[in-house]
Amino acid sequence: MIEHIIKTIEKYKLIERNQHIIVGFSGGADSLFLVEVLLEYRKRVPFFIHCCHVNHLLRGIEALHDEEFCRQFCLQYNLPFYAFRIDIQSYSRKDKLSLEEAGRKIRYDRFHRIANKWANSKIAVAHHADDQVETILQNLIRGAAITGLAGMEFEKAGIVRPLLEIYKEDIIKYLQECDISYCIDSTNEENDYNRNRIRNLLIPSLEEYNPNFKASILRMSSSLHRDDDFLEQESAFYFDKVVKKDEDSFCYLDLDLWKELHPSLQYRIIIKLIEELKGNRKNIGQEHLDRITGLCSKEKGKKEYLAGYTWLKDQNRLWVYKEKKQDPIEINLILGKDCYINGYIIRADKIKVSDQKKRNAVYFSTDLLKCPLYLRNRKNGDRFFPFNAPGEKKLKDFFIDEKIPQFKRDRIPLLISEEKIIWIPGIRRSNWHLVQIEDEEVVEITWRKI
Amino acid sequence: MIEHIIKTIEKYKLIERNQHIIVGFSGGADSLFLVEVLLEYRKRVPFFIHCCHVNHLLRGIEALHDEEFCRQFCLQYNLPFYAFRIDIQSYSRKDKLSLEEAGRKIRYDRFHRIANKWANSKIAVAHHADDQVETILQNLIRGAAITGLAGMEFEKAGIVRPLLEIYKEDIIKYLQECDISYCIDSTNEENDYNRNRIRNLLIPSLEEYNPNFKASILRMSSSLHRDDDFLEQESAFYFDKVVKKDEDSFCYLDLDLWKELHPSLQYRIIIKLIEELKGNRKNIGQEHLDRITGLCSKEKGKKEYLAGYTWLKDQNRLWVYKEKKQDPIEINLILGKDCYINGYIIRADKIKVSDQKKRNAVYFSTDLLKCPLYLRNRKNGDRFFPFNAPGEKKLKDFFIDEKIPQFKRDRIPLLISEEKIIWIPGIRRSNWHLVQIEDEEVVEITWRKI
Repeated sequence: MIEHIIKTIEKYKLIERNQHIIVGFSGGADSLFLVEVLLEYRKRVPFFIHCCHVNHLLRGIEALHDEEFCRQFCLQYNLPFYAFRIDIQSYSRKDKLSLEEAGRKIRYDRFHRIANKWANSKIAVAHHADDQVETILQNLIRGAAITGLAGMEFEKAGIVRPLLEIYKEDIIKYLQECDISYCIDSTNEENDYNRNRIRNLLIPSLEEYNPNFKASILRMSSSLHRDDDFLEQESAFYFDKVVKKDEDSFCYLDLDLWKELHPSLQYRIIIKLIEELKGNRKNIGQEHLDRITGLCSKEKGKKEYLAGYTWLKDQNRLWVYKEKKQDPIEINLILGKDCYINGYIIRADKIKVSDQKKRNAVYFSTDLLKCPLYLRNRKNGDRFFPFNAPGEKKLKDFFIDEKIPQFKRDRIPLLISEEKIIWIPGIRRSNWHLVQIEDEEVVEITWRKI
Repeated sequence: MIEHIIKTIEKYKLIERNQHIIVGFSGGADSLFLVEVLLEYRKRVPFFIHCCHVNHLLRGIEALHDEEFCRQFCLQYNLPFYAFRIDIQSYSRKDKLSLEEAGRKIRYDRFHRIANKWANSKIAVAHHADDQVETILQNLIRGAAITGLAGMEFEKAGIVRPLLEIYKEDIIKYLQECDISYCIDSTNEENDYNRNRIRNLLIPSLEEYNPNFKASILRMSSSLHRDDDFLEQESAFYFDKVVKKDEDSFCYLDLDLWKELHPSLQYRIIIKLIEELKGNRKNIGQEHLDRITGLCSKEKGKKEYLAGYTWLKDQNRLWVYKEKKQDPIEINLILGKDCYINGYIIRADKIKVSDQKKRNAVYFSTDLLKCPLYLRNRKNGDRFFPFNAPGEKKLKDFFIDEKIPQFKRDRIPLLISEEKIIWIPGIRRSNWHLVQIEDEEVVEITWRKI
């Protein structure tokens, strides 16, 4: 059995030479067995084993005994031992998590803290084949997609699971045969109600249909992992082509490219995007995805709200942005001083007419331009007289003509003089106060993004 | 509900204008409801409905009543009605199939026979959402891959299933509300033991974990169908590039190309190939596929046997062929007469020396060449003196030098004169009996593949 696991470790390159492996070490049968396997493998390939024990302070004296057991074990094998005592109960109450969720979060947090001490490190946990089958069934019951049905992976995000193909039964048998003692967590069995029912009722009843049910599920898992990995690879490739940022760093989906893709990739790209925006894909279900993919073929201007973002269908873009009610802003622009507004730096200077040569600048006649100058957001009823246009028009119509998406319009500062919009930074100057042939000095107004 | 189904029909283009739709019509709730839906849809789009009823002769008088009920129903709506009475019992015994398998086979066979009368036809069956959930669980229990877990499709291979999203419960409710009577098959519920246990025990127990279990499974199904369809499309694209035939029509996998592909596609290409060879993928499990994919990275000359074929790893090809013990053949080659051997046509003629100009021909000196000529397969100990070589060598070594795969060697006819191999058709002539400067006539030997 040890040989089989070592082959798995080698096949999937789970542990490499000189790596620091942080083992989640409860002292129970699974994690103790995992440490035994690693000690065995370390006889062949040099690497470092660190044991990390988290006492959840839920089981009083029994838990202290387990902690001591782990400490003694590590002393015996001369392994670095890290023990944490954390009040999971109050943590779970504070963060409104179940005890299991809170425990998992704290444990992995501590594992990562230790792993982060070395550049070349990984976390190893003792999930075995029975855990895998339970996880897959749990995911099936809630109607997961392929990734959930495939279950846990041998390696993902710096966490390795070398025992995924080994049954609990065989672990116990091995420890008994070798006369190795381990801790028994008296509450463990009761912790997760659903999970225990899956283990003790559902799986045995499924084994009545197929005595090799567990092996069948593991086979299914490996086949789904293969497919999922390919789909992931393909969608990552297209994600970088389809999801873009415009010059104002607004994120959008290029719908011309997106629509060319197979629906399977289309969905995955949306999921990936949500994951990037939100940091995870929690609470994102099929219905949400259907809404967003549906939006992509709706007419221009339609919106959806998902994951804290507004999704806006434009001509051939799907914009994704946070709806912010822009407070009215008014800032004076003082000659010779930088002015910060809505992510722009704007500055006005008097310069000689011969020095007009900057990009990102507009020039006004010193004689015609009246101070004070100020910057503000748009207001209802604003009008604008674009450079070289035959006359004034509604600012709204100008924005429409210029194809400025609605959600950007509130954030664009307008330069005002004598109640007239004389310049829209980065977009257009007005026809007002053009530099005159007789001007010797001009007002130069420059802008750049922060 | 009818509206929802009609939308599904339109969305997936299940039924098109003027098509002939052959409905599997038992007279039970599901198929009766399907006919009602089709009649409703036909008010909007013109197409033809044909009802096909198969009496399995398992339920005596009750089945005759059902048949008559269906006949009357069709008369009432003026629908063409086709009834078959087939002794499923004896058919299942003869073909060693379960009653369910035999029934399914016979039914679809009859549906297809009727459908084949028109170029533009489809078969419609009444599988509903509950059937779908049961099918998926059945496949899950046996550890199916993604295609099995995705379940049945709205349309596949000319069979449409417009009711796949409709629950049995809702069908019954509809029929009751509209006061439509239907047949009840008293044995139906008992037919498939496993399936009934899934329906009556397993699904209710899974609904204790998730009250929306069935809806979750249907959501999972649609997501898996999407992924499966993409994987299918990608692998079909690469299949045509990777699976080739050589000049002798021997099938092989181009391993240089195959190895470049993602394992998900690699497996799918092997499955597709087996399906093409065998006509189905029955009894082909993960272990078989692992053996074949494993073979691809083994050394040259290694073999596996699967699906009635030999799979031979060559340099950068994986050959797939039927192992045939070649019986010893010996055929005289008579001047002026075609000779058929191992798929070749070989013929010898005396011609003027000036007429030597054929491709696929060799020429021998009439004076040197001694009749009788004959063709035979190779024998142990054969030696060969290739044209322009310094001397004789073992025929086996010649084949190795020429990179002729072993399985082809037995089928290559050898032309013999005076116990010497004087020619190997399509490969090389010997150094014997070359045309001499003084020859006026020569013996021309031509060959072509049948």
